[in-house]
Amino acid sequence: MLLHLSTWSEVDQFLKRSQTIVIPIGSNEQHGPTGLLGTDWLCPEIICRAAETQGDILVAPTFNIGMAQHHLGFAGTISLRPTTFIAAIMDWVHSLSRHGFRKILFLNGHGGNVASIEAAFSEIYAESSFAGRRAGFALKLCNWWDLEGVNELARDMFPTGHGAHATPSEIAVTQFAFPDTIKHADYAPKIAPSGPIREALEFRGRFPDGRMGSDPGQATPEKGRALVELAARSLLTELAAFTNESVPA
Amino acid sequence: MLLHLSTWSEVDQFLKRSQTIVIPIGSNEQHGPTGLLGTDWLCPEIICRAAETQGDILVAPTFNIGMAQHHLGFAGTISLRPTTFIAAIMDWVHSLSRHGFRKILFLNGHGGNVASIEAAFSEIYAESSFAGRRAGFALKLCNWWDLEGVNELARDMFPTGHGAHATPSEIAVTQFAFPDTIKHADYAPKIAPSGPIREALEFRGRFPDGRMGSDPGQATPEKGRALVELAARSLLTELAAFTNESVPA
Amino acid sequence: MLLHLSTWSEVDQFLKRSQTIVIPIGSNEQHGPTGLLGTDWLCPEIICRAAETQGDILVAPTFNIGMAQHHLGFAGTISLRPTTFIAAIMDWVHSLSRHGFRKILFLNGHGGNVASIEAAFSEIYAESSFAGRRAGFALKLCNWWDLEGVNELARDMFPTGHGAHATPSEIAVTQFAFPDTIKHADYAPKIAPSGPIREALEFRGRFPDGRMGSDPGQATPEKGRALVELAARSLLTELAAFTNESVPA
Amino acid sequence: MLLHLSTWSEVDQFLKRSQTIVIPIGSNEQHGPTGLLGTDWLCPEIICRAAETQGDILVAPTFNIGMAQHHLGFAGTISLRPTTFIAAIMDWVHSLSRHGFRKILFLNGHGGNVASIEAAFSEIYAESSFAGRRAGFALKLCNWWDLEGVNELARDMFPTGHGAHATPSEIAVTQFAFPDTIKHADYAPKIAPSGPIREALEFRGRFPDGRMGSDPGQATPEKGRALVELAARSLLTELAAFTNESVPA
Amino acid sequence: MLLHLSTWSEVDQFLKRSQTIVIPIGSNEQHGPTGLLGTDWLCPEIICRAAETQGDILVAPTFNIGMAQHHLGFAGTISLRPTTFIAAIMDWVHSLSRHGFRKILFLNGHGGNVASIEAAFSEIYAESSFAGRRAGFALKLCNWWDLEGVNELARDMFPTGHGAHATPSEIAVTQFAFPDTIKHADYAPKIAPSGPIREALEFRGRFPDGRMGSDPGQATPEKGRALVELAARSLLTELAAFTNESVPA
Amino acid sequence: MLLHLSTWSEVDQFLKRSQTIVIPIGSNEQHGPTGLLGTDWLCPEIICRAAETQGDILVAPTFNIGMAQHHLGFAGTISLRPTTFIAAIMDWVHSLSRHGFRKILFLNGHGGNVASIEAAFSEIYAESSFAGRRAGFALKLCNWWDLEGVNELARDMFPTGHGAHATPSEIAVTQFAFPDTIKHADYAPKIAPSGPIREALEFRGRFPDGRMGSDPGQATPEKGRALVELAARSLLTELAAFTNESVPA
Repeated sequence: MLLHLSTWSEVDQFLKRSQTIVIPIGSNEQHGPTGLLGTDWLCPEIICRAAETQGDILVAPTFNIGMAQHHLGFAGTISLRPTTFIAAIMDWVHSLSRHGFRKILFLNGHGGNVASIEAAFSEIYAESSFAGRRAGFALKLCNWWDLEGVNELARDMFPTGHGAHATPSEIAVTQFAFPDTIKHADYAPKIAPSGPIREALEFRGRFPDGRMGSDPGQATPEKGRALVELAARSLLTELAAFTNESVPA
Repeated sequence: MLLHLSTWSEVDQFLKRSQTIVIPIGSNEQHGPTGLLGTDWLCPEIICRAAETQGDILVAPTFNIGMAQHHLGFAGTISLRPTTFIAAIMDWVHSLSRHGFRKILFLNGHGGNVASIEAAFSEIYAESSFAGRRAGFALKLCNWWDLEGVNELARDMFPTGHGAHATPSEIAVTQFAFPDTIKHADYAPKIAPSGPIREALEFRGRFPDGRMGSDPGQATPEKGRALVELAARSLLTELAAFTNESVPA
Repeated sequence: MLLHLSTWSEVDQFLKRSQTIVIPIGSNEQHGPTGLLGTDWLCPEIICRAAETQGDILVAPTFNIGMAQHHLGFAGTISLRPTTFIAAIMDWVHSLSRHGFRKILFLNGHGGNVASIEAAFSEIYAESSFAGRRAGFALKLCNWWDLEGVNELARDMFPTGHGAHATPSEIAVTQFAFPDTIKHADYAPKIAPSGPIREALEFRGRFPDGRMGSDPGQATPEKGRALVELAARSLLTELAAFTNESVPA
Repeated sequence: MLLHLSTWSEVDQFLKRSQTIVIPIGSNEQHGPTGLLGTDWLCPEIICRAAETQGDILVAPTFNIGMAQHHLGFAGTISLRPTTFIAAIMDWVHSLSRHGFRKILFLNGHGGNVASIEAAFSEIYAESSFAGRRAGFALKLCNWWDLEGVNELARDMFPTGHGAHATPSEIAVTQFAFPDTIKHADYAPKIAPSGPIREALEFRGRFPDGRMGSDPGQATPEKGRALVELAARSLLTELAAFTNESVPA
Repeated sequence: MLLHLSTWSEVDQFLKRSQTIVIPIGSNEQHGPTGLLGTDWLCPEIICRAAETQGDILVAPTFNIGMAQHHLGFAGTISLRPTTFIAAIMDWVHSLSRHGFRKILFLNGHGGNVASIEAAFSEIYAESSFAGRRAGFALKLCNWWDLEGVNELARDMFPTGHGAHATPSEIAVTQFAFPDTIKHADYAPKIAPSGPIREALEFRGRFPDGRMGSDPGQATPEKGRALVELAARSLLTELAAFTNESVPA
Repeated sequence: MLLHLSTWSEVDQFLKRSQTIVIPIGSNEQHGPTGLLGTDWLCPEIICRAAETQGDILVAPTFNIGMAQHHLGFAGTISLRPTTFIAAIMDWVHSLSRHGFRKILFLNGHGGNVASIEAAFSEIYAESSFAGRRAGFALKLCNWWDLEGVNELARDMFPTGHGAHATPSEIAVTQFAFPDTIKHADYAPKIAPSGPIREALEFRGRFPDGRMGSDPGQATPEKGRALVELAARSLLTELAAFTNESVPA
């Protein structure tokens, strides 16, 4: 069930049988010479929608802009500051918990989001912790590549040149979902360099075409399909486990 | 051109021929017994994408969560606080202006967003105004129903029971775009009541099924198609005028 | 009854017979070659004080600095950022609601304030809406020129050249109240230009003497008196209606 | 010269001969059984306006709401949180310094404001200090009772029962300016108790009628006149000294 | 008892016999040619630890960075903005009050902290005051030099050249505690100048070697010992009085 | 060289030979039945001070309160909210970078700090990234247990029951540094349970004595000495590498 294509009374009905919701969350940022700017929010959205066709889950609208300050040297990147990101996640969670959702899973598509999302969770929990009361809900962050089996599959497909940004696995996922948008380039070097992430101008100096450690030329729509199918199945498992997780009194 | 399906170098190319971008912006909130929760962000997204097939414009990802505090009494509504909304709009604008965009148009789908978006514009402009320097970009807010001819068409189609929330025109637009999601209900009363908007519990007391002044039963996909086609054409006109608008030295 | 000239026990007495208060709110900003910098906060203050002599109402101190970032190119303008404005309105409302005021009307004298005041109301209501509880009070924004009959009277008095800033009607109100401060100028052009409002330097480029669409030379103290008398009567009506407005359970 | 009764071009003229401005700043809060709620902002306003009739100074609009959280247990008190207060003072200073004011004096009427105003000054200066540049303006806080000779005169007039809140000297000043609002009460005890200031409910428990250490029954309009006349003269001296103060290169 | 060298269950035990805690708070900032950068946080820490050996008190970790924007022109100074400082004090107090501490005394070592700490207290109390509930705890700020007898002793030791920053008394305290770090310099002039405190560059222009009004050459470790011993005894007295202070119902 | 025991001119001298500084950063929070509340800030402080005796490095004062919201169910824990933490780190970095430090390493002692510190780095870098300018400094986060060889040594020492909180390795470090504070307990169970971290009350329900997955009974001062000696050497290596790291133009 897709929240945005449902009515409020359908959500009320859903809440009677489950208090779990999944939010695809990512970033809109450069993904090298051939990767789509939307890659990092499209991947979790694609996986959530694939899972939704197979199980009775509720998928929230996609949180499509994240923490991408280091990519701002490349056109089309849109970034929130971490403090803005924290405030927005807080408002999403307060909205959903008010309706009775008690397990809220963020399926994340951008490594650069992790710290800010976890900081947001702590900011939210801190309200209860300072007040000495229970929060009444649990938050979970899960990167789509960490879903059961996905990293292993990606490693099998791309034993070298997977890298950390504009990876062949994420490019493959978008190629599968948007075959009309597949782009090609001569990557030079074939595998991009690695290094630390700091501010945007230094980033562009260090990673001139935007890739980090990756050779996205290995991506194919077929590999993308396999990744999505596995990730969707694992997401259903993950959501079921999260739903069933018991909480100390 | 859809930003999220483009690469950074394609955006660089676009910037050479135009520094204008349109951002669909809306809200995810209850829309009465039959309206989709995503209605207010789907409408501007649908119109932008229709326009994009007809003109060389650049469409940003959709800003899908807005200011909907008064709808929080109905399940599925997700709202930002105005101050969070302002911070997020600020970050979007700073990201885009950094890349060289000089005309940024927000095509809005939610009346409740207007004050916060305008306050955000003032917050952004104030940075330049306090510093005594030019901003270097212009911001514009345009509700999709205020695009040339659209209000008139809606009034012709729905002379009574258009109302202010869960209107037949916005329901029609989503029916056209998502015909599989069309829902029906016996509206009682046929035309919903009107009144002031305050906090969520008072809102639900005043507007028990979520509609405000509207009879969405009049919506049809065909009417939706006509509205989208007209709005898309008018959006192209609006964007061209905004692009060509000269600015005092 | 003027709050600032009362004691706390007199306010306690007032609260036993009414829980309604009116706050004059405006801005301190340039008003063209002849308009007073205080025009926008003086007008609602003048009207409230005229009304107070005729009815048992309680008038708060004047909120005299608002959102005027676009006027900062002209000396004497003082502006809050929208987020500061929101925080301050929040504190005023929390102070007054704590004492038992349940209907708080802001009589506004500056169009540029509207978005930020409405955003502030939403920020305040959102606290209750997220928490799932009633606010216990209602907020209302009313521009003095929207009081019953006032716009009509102004249109009759000034069929052309009323404009949007440094209007003859607001100049007339201050001429009536402060006849010693009346200033004259040769306005060139007679009716000022119109156009969009952005940051301060662009604003000054577009509106070189500060006026927008207006010919303030039409103002007279007598017209000001008529406007104030009408507005004061209509304010009493407005406050009575707001006081009596019932709220859904 | 009163800023709010001037035009922007008159302020431009003033700036050519002086870059100094004085801002009356106070609080709107309970002042015991007989004191006006506006006492703390009326006193500096009264003194500034008296001084303005005698010297070529520029008086800003009155900053009438300050930090009065401890008085919120008494009806009519309106308080800003310190962080709101800091943000607002910051915006006032940025507005005025942008116009070219280089010496900004806050004439304060409320002891409870002092810490927040000084914190605001530090917040403002810190912007320059972190950036390693000069601020370009100087800020000064002066309580009206600390103007030369004023404390001495008050001590002579009220050797006992002056106290710290709802003092006979501030009551006298408002009696002089607003003789129609003079109120009387049997104070019990004659001199109010003293003690620490914490939150509002504890404050009311400790100071049941709102006074702190004072016997306001000693106030007379004549004493108020003497205080105002002296304070006005001393304010002119203070402003001249501040204007002439040289700053290290 | 030093909190940081205790276990949580030891703190639980302590709370059964006392709900009072003392927090050494200071600043890390230049202290002239010979003063340690840590002087202002070391002094209260030294005094608290001396007191802790003589009485059953609980000493929190030292809050070692304060408001020192004006010293940023000298290397090694670390400053919080006042608003950051307020937020941090708020979190400390909310943490400690949650555990049951009801009397929280900040022993301060930096005059520049006073306004921000008091503003923080008001910000914290305001939460209760706006909500109309008791805070449940009392906060107290005490500068170590204001402990009973300390100012007098310092005046006896240093009748001239005590000054306001890099004073011989604070230098002496650190000389006593860290005799290996004693530094010497030819102070020119012997007694440093005095003047107002504004931003960092102006400060350095006015106070070229960092001292304000002081001759730290008078400091000796023996004088430091006497100051610490007296201050430690007076701190125990102060804490006992604060603990025993009764609060109105 | 310890910053807090140095003068500003000594820091100026240091800056001529190195622009690198290390900040010990941790948390003050419960560490099980026997662990010191200060463990997480003491460990990096101990290691930094050991390293400082062996190399020409500059050690900042210890940032002793971090993000520990989940431990607030245990007395003595003091936590910042993530947003406060971010603001404070920002101020530290802006202070130090203003003095000319270009490599700032945070040696961290608390896993719960990692997300907030990284979010703070992004918030700081974002200022430059949005502005399109270089930051001029590089930030690095290093947990002391991730210093070269340390994790391996800890694993050798404690092959089972190392766990994630109140670990024998951190307890050992404090036992070495503070042998007088060694405490004993019968741990039941010997190895504490594991599980997710959420708000404070749930945390205490899940981890009743505060430990997570650890058996701190294995700690000895001798093991602590070995850990500190290795970590100190590795910190010097780490700082040298960071100092020498070249940055793209």
